[in-house]
Amino acid sequence: MCETCGCGDPHRVPVEVQEKILAGNERQAAHNRARFGEHGVLAINLMGSPGAGKTAVLEATARRLGPNRRLAAITGDLATDRDAERLRAAGIPAHAITTGSACHLDAELVHRALHHVPLAGLDYLFIENVGNLVCPAVYDLGQAFNIVVLSVTEGWDKPLKYPVMFRVADLVLVSKVDLLPHLGDVTLEAIAGALARVMPEPHLLAVSAQTGQGIEEWKRWLEAQKAGIRTAPDSLRAHPSP
Amino acid sequence: MCETCGCGDPHRVPVEVQEKILAGNERQAAHNRARFGEHGVLAINLMGSPGAGKTAVLEATARRLGPNRRLAAITGDLATDRDAERLRAAGIPAHAITTGSACHLDAELVHRALHHVPLAGLDYLFIENVGNLVCPAVYDLGQAFNIVVLSVTEGWDKPLKYPVMFRVADLVLVSKVDLLPHLGDVTLEAIAGALARVMPEPHLLAVSAQTGQGIEEWKRWLEAQKAGIRTAPDSLRAHPSP
Repeated sequence: MCETCGCGDPHRVPVEVQEKILAGNERQAAHNRARFGEHGVLAINLMGSPGAGKTAVLEATARRLGPNRRLAAITGDLATDRDAERLRAAGIPAHAITTGSACHLDAELVHRALHHVPLAGLDYLFIENVGNLVCPAVYDLGQAFNIVVLSVTEGWDKPLKYPVMFRVADLVLVSKVDLLPHLGDVTLEAIAGALARVMPEPHLLAVSAQTGQGIEEWKRWLEAQKAGIRTAPDSLRAHPSP
Repeated sequence: MCETCGCGDPHRVPVEVQEKILAGNERQAAHNRARFGEHGVLAINLMGSPGAGKTAVLEATARRLGPNRRLAAITGDLATDRDAERLRAAGIPAHAITTGSACHLDAELVHRALHHVPLAGLDYLFIENVGNLVCPAVYDLGQAFNIVVLSVTEGWDKPLKYPVMFRVADLVLVSKVDLLPHLGDVTLEAIAGALARVMPEPHLLAVSAQTGQGIEEWKRWLEAQKAGIRTAPDSLRAHPSP
């Protein structure tokens, strides 16, 4: 975090104000995490740039996991509940948080949204954060895992330029890989190389919601975490999926 | 702006702290604006999501404007000076601001960068903001115009979901239009329709740094503003360029 305000503001928010804000968020996040734990719900904080394909990945995830798994979602956007609508159409009960002009969700906003999302019997709760490659990285929501969706159309160098987000990521879903043939100098190898320079434990999966590529592997990753296996298979470490 | 912190933080930064921060920024922005005016420099605040193509648009702009116009750039990123390096390679003197974890530039950061960017004799100063579709919208830098680069790969609905950014935009450059044939439901008409719902005066230009499409029209827009003509031609209003 920068020396100014909690979400990376370069301005002069006093340090004691920042600390109070983050301490309050940590307390609320711990409360959320305890609730998820009580219900055996695996909570995922899904982050990424605007238009990275977060909602499309969740639609594909719902199709792949099928009716045997119970999913729900909380979606964050400045305005509209379009993402929640799309997810409901894909069979995922979803509640929209509209943040006005706020650039990320926080633990309190998620806590309030949980009044609309019954946790009993749920397997997975996906929290689709506001599209933003900076601010959401700073605020713990109570999730078990941070997943970053990074579209190949954003270029290969984003991990180097926005390292704060990738340092907290447990797994990066490199999305829209069906567009790679049209993107000149962008390759999975270049993206994997950039991630290896900033992620403490580089894990990535190449996916396409359009073609379904990588979605089975992503499903297996989710199911492995759900089963309590925290470590990803060696095959996923810093290697793009085929 | 939201009721919390200057960059749209949902947390509880006291109102008096926010007001002080923004008032300080306004004063510094006015000072920057006066300096740009003294030197007859047209300053452009270039905003957009990570990977929207801001740097590529500037590279293409330098090629099109040619040696008769003197350009300079200030680039903002959390880390690396890659964008400034790319712009220098394209013939634009450029100074990088690395913000650490800050999600936007502010007038003070730009002011400090101006020590490295001589304004005398300059025609255009492009301030390439941190890749972020939320926070940069709130902070005046002293620019004459706000330009938002919106890639077609981000989908057609981003103006509806991130209206704060588009409300302050004087012109939206809809970028990477060469990729449209591969993007299913994304059309220029859909993007123009979404912009028309949130921009007070909807102006857009469809561009591709790859093919050069729309860059001549963008150059003409710049030259018209440089000549002191504030209003864009009617042909640009809410219509995608051919």
